[in-house]
Amino acid sequence: MIHSASGCAVDITAYLEEKRVLINEYLKSYFAAPLQPEALHESVAYSLFAGGKRIRPILALASYEACGGNARDILPQAAALELLHTYSLIHDDLPAMDNDDLRRGKPTNHKVFGEAIAILAGDALLTEAFFMIADTNSSLRTFPGRSMEGVRNKRLRRPSLLRLVREIARAAGMRGMVGGQAQDILAENSEPDEQTLSFIHLHKTAALIAASVRLGPMLAKSSARVLRALTQYGEHMGLAFQIVDDLLDVEGTTPELGKTVGSDRAKRKMTYPALYGVEVARRKAEECLAGALRALRPFASEADPLREIAHYLVRRRR
Amino acid sequence: MIHSASGCAVDITAYLEEKRVLINEYLKSYFAAPLQPEALHESVAYSLFAGGKRIRPILALASYEACGGNARDILPQAAALELLHTYSLIHDDLPAMDNDDLRRGKPTNHKVFGEAIAILAGDALLTEAFFMIADTNSSLRTFPGRSMEGVRNKRLRRPSLLRLVREIARAAGMRGMVGGQAQDILAENSEPDEQTLSFIHLHKTAALIAASVRLGPMLAKSSARVLRALTQYGEHMGLAFQIVDDLLDVEGTTPELGKTVGSDRAKRKMTYPALYGVEVARRKAEECLAGALRALRPFASEADPLREIAHYLVRRRR
Repeated sequence: MIHSASGCAVDITAYLEEKRVLINEYLKSYFAAPLQPEALHESVAYSLFAGGKRIRPILALASYEACGGNARDILPQAAALELLHTYSLIHDDLPAMDNDDLRRGKPTNHKVFGEAIAILAGDALLTEAFFMIADTNSSLRTFPGRSMEGVRNKRLRRPSLLRLVREIARAAGMRGMVGGQAQDILAENSEPDEQTLSFIHLHKTAALIAASVRLGPMLAKSSARVLRALTQYGEHMGLAFQIVDDLLDVEGTTPELGKTVGSDRAKRKMTYPALYGVEVARRKAEECLAGALRALRPFASEADPLREIAHYLVRRRR
Repeated sequence: MIHSASGCAVDITAYLEEKRVLINEYLKSYFAAPLQPEALHESVAYSLFAGGKRIRPILALASYEACGGNARDILPQAAALELLHTYSLIHDDLPAMDNDDLRRGKPTNHKVFGEAIAILAGDALLTEAFFMIADTNSSLRTFPGRSMEGVRNKRLRRPSLLRLVREIARAAGMRGMVGGQAQDILAENSEPDEQTLSFIHLHKTAALIAASVRLGPMLAKSSARVLRALTQYGEHMGLAFQIVDDLLDVEGTTPELGKTVGSDRAKRKMTYPALYGVEVARRKAEECLAGALRALRPFASEADPLREIAHYLVRRRR
């Protein structure tokens, strides 16, 4: 076991890889059956298996584990977050939106499948995400290693799943991610201001990240205190994640990121570095990291993966 | 009470109007609170309140009533179907899809708000639909007239709502409406064949119509026999609805329909009239009507509205 910079006894690289494999195996098995029309299925699979880091599902699994749960019991719900994230990328990349040609080092979905199928692939992923969240059986049916406790809790978990449908719909929809993306598009080419920038960040990215973290305590039926602490962690991480994304667009390189760098500036996007400069933005990200770690104080080593993920997300290079 | 052509003692015009008002009032109250960004809210409201016939919600309410329920108890779930229908129209009308300029006699959403906001308005409606389906409280909180039985059943209904989330996600997503729309786009300009046409019809329209009808017995916890009968009714009506839509595109006029007629032919869409001719298509629609009415035989007068709606939908002029 490697002791990391944060002093936690978690090998974060191994942890992330293990969870990534778990999510990928679940998604592969879920989308294994052929589906008509083939072009739609291919388009969905193209973006879903384009090498995403699976940050949102991993946050959900780590947060569920921090609450004493077995990650395999909530794979459908965690994987659904990746469907939502993938749909948002496909739609954001469209010519009418951010008009991006490159994503994760590959041509964007509409470049390969055309705009119509790309729009429909996004719609399909968004809709399927809610099927997965509401699926009380799928991990049981299709995936080995689900714990017996998970099986026994199946009935008990139903009200939580219904609450989760609402939670995720709020975070992903017009009161969350879609609202943020709309504001992001509308604010292009206008003078950056603190209030609009904050709205964009909190809605476009932070809402779904925070909801991913909240998924853990919600499904583990943790206490209000635990839910509050993890919500704070999730909100800090959501903001940090978007600031770092904006910074990488300024400081990163295209091969590292797998997408065109400098595009925010070219499109006159409202970003943290654009409003405050790189230095202040970097400091703000570090403050968010500190806030996220502070929120985890009530937890012992069961939250070490969440601590390490926080460091990893703020210090990442892609 | 007017005895109609079908011999049922239901004033169908009054019935449809009463239900339409109920749905519209619910939707208006749901979307009354201002929402940032304004342009997104306006875009959503523009299409949602563009004078839709509310067929899917009305089918759900009529089917719930046929199972002995009070329509006001399932308004959120019924209204959610209209959000799904509206999102599908906004996305279908996009330049990359069917490229339509006119819908319900008004410029299409992207013509007014631009493509980016139109895509996001569709995404917002699709996501919000699942919030509404999973909402155990909203009609209680915001809408008068909910029956006390509905209130008492709140807890009991939760497992049904979770099942309904899956049912609607399947009907609306890649295994339903989105799959059908993708096949519809892909089949443009190719020689019509029976198998592809049948796939398009069953998925693009019939799946969500059938699910709308199934919503009633599912939430009323009706017997398997009742669910089966209403499923048959819904499947016949779904197919009839699409055939009549195709026929109106050939036979209707633009002012009647509020959308450009003849566009299917111009785009070389695969339709029933294109494959079989108008005569055979009209006969097929009548056969579906007969099948739908046959499926309702186990029901007494409680299914009269469903019978009248079937006649209305097959003989409509818009």
